[in-house]
Amino acid sequence: MTKILGVLGGMGPLASAHFMLRLTLLTPAERDQEHIPAVLWSDPRVPDRTAARLAGGTDPLPALLHGLRGLEAAGCGAIAIPCNTAHGWHAEMQAATRLPILHIVEATAAELERLGVPSGPIGVMGTAATLAMRLYQQGLEGRGWSCLVPDGTEMAERVTPGIGLVKANRVAEAYAPLAEVAQRLVDRGARAVVLGCTEIPLGIAAGPALPFPVADSIDALARAAIRWARSD
Amino acid sequence: MTKILGVLGGMGPLASAHFMLRLTLLTPAERDQEHIPAVLWSDPRVPDRTAARLAGGTDPLPALLHGLRGLEAAGCGAIAIPCNTAHGWHAEMQAATRLPILHIVEATAAELERLGVPSGPIGVMGTAATLAMRLYQQGLEGRGWSCLVPDGTEMAERVTPGIGLVKANRVAEAYAPLAEVAQRLVDRGARAVVLGCTEIPLGIAAGPALPFPVADSIDALARAAIRWARSD
Repeated sequence: MTKILGVLGGMGPLASAHFMLRLTLLTPAERDQEHIPAVLWSDPRVPDRTAARLAGGTDPLPALLHGLRGLEAAGCGAIAIPCNTAHGWHAEMQAATRLPILHIVEATAAELERLGVPSGPIGVMGTAATLAMRLYQQGLEGRGWSCLVPDGTEMAERVTPGIGLVKANRVAEAYAPLAEVAQRLVDRGARAVVLGCTEIPLGIAAGPALPFPVADSIDALARAAIRWARSD
Repeated sequence: MTKILGVLGGMGPLASAHFMLRLTLLTPAERDQEHIPAVLWSDPRVPDRTAARLAGGTDPLPALLHGLRGLEAAGCGAIAIPCNTAHGWHAEMQAATRLPILHIVEATAAELERLGVPSGPIGVMGTAATLAMRLYQQGLEGRGWSCLVPDGTEMAERVTPGIGLVKANRVAEAYAPLAEVAQRLVDRGARAVVLGCTEIPLGIAAGPALPFPVADSIDALARAAIRWARSD
């Protein structure tokens, strides 16, 4: 293992720590030295991405670029960002670095294929900003998938509070509201549900397994990073 | 939160990812921006610390110092190292940096006090090198604790293989051998057991809770780091 993965994280910090855990557990390895070298830049001070996009909050781009510079200086060869909403700034970040930045929506598309759902209606859960920016709709529609998203009430009463509970370390309480919305999307015809905010898989993991395929954007990004690290 | 914690990790990578998770979960915070900024330098290529100390293997110090330089360059204000055995090089590392390096044995002493075991016989589990270097014995004896350690057969047949299973991502299988040795130390009179290798708490967490106090060196170091980050 000679390539070093740069992880631009802290958005939130629990999601990026969990990404590091999944990166390790999904890597075939018998001893330390066979795992992937990585530097995690965990800066929870990055201004809130949803507030920036939807409510005129502070632009997170300068903080994101500062982290990128740090990961470049550390010798990293590619960047993974375990925050879906931050991918609303993917183009600006990619324009500012020569390092490839893995795209979490591309990674999640590969995960849907791996799960045996290569097309058809799927549910997409994410922050209000991720859905409003149409990150998944633009990335997946026209490639055989169609996206069902929670309605305004489901977002306001369940998804957004569920994400907030994870960010406040109240992971177990996040399960019920998040799992209920995932089930409703399936009831409306989704063949699988994309957990398109890196807090959502943490809440969903805190309760009984859902009885339908879920594409976990943390695992998807970890698998994409492992493919990068092990490629020539 | 303005201080940045540097985490010299990758030894092993699962332990340092778990450290980041525990650092986050143990921090009182309601939103991302209240968590501790941190940079994790996860370099699993650091030569094996036990082999270096006990079998003439490659010296890990150059790799450790390289990581320290990276964390200094990233703007970190203190260093935590979620690997007990690496603390055999604590003095050399501390001599090479102006940043304070938290000491995992000091952190674990504070954890024993928090658990209500401020003195008396305690069990210490760790790598063969950690026990041979007497990191815990030197740090804890003469302060009211006395250390019981596994015998040679217990180390060779249970503790060392259990640590190896965690490093190979076979965490569930590590529970039985590690839990059995912890129980034996209590049977010999230990009032608590120090999990003095950062792989051991991962194995112990994979099965039923042990019916006696355990001082988890990962949680201990995370609490010490939080105290540092929140102090003036």
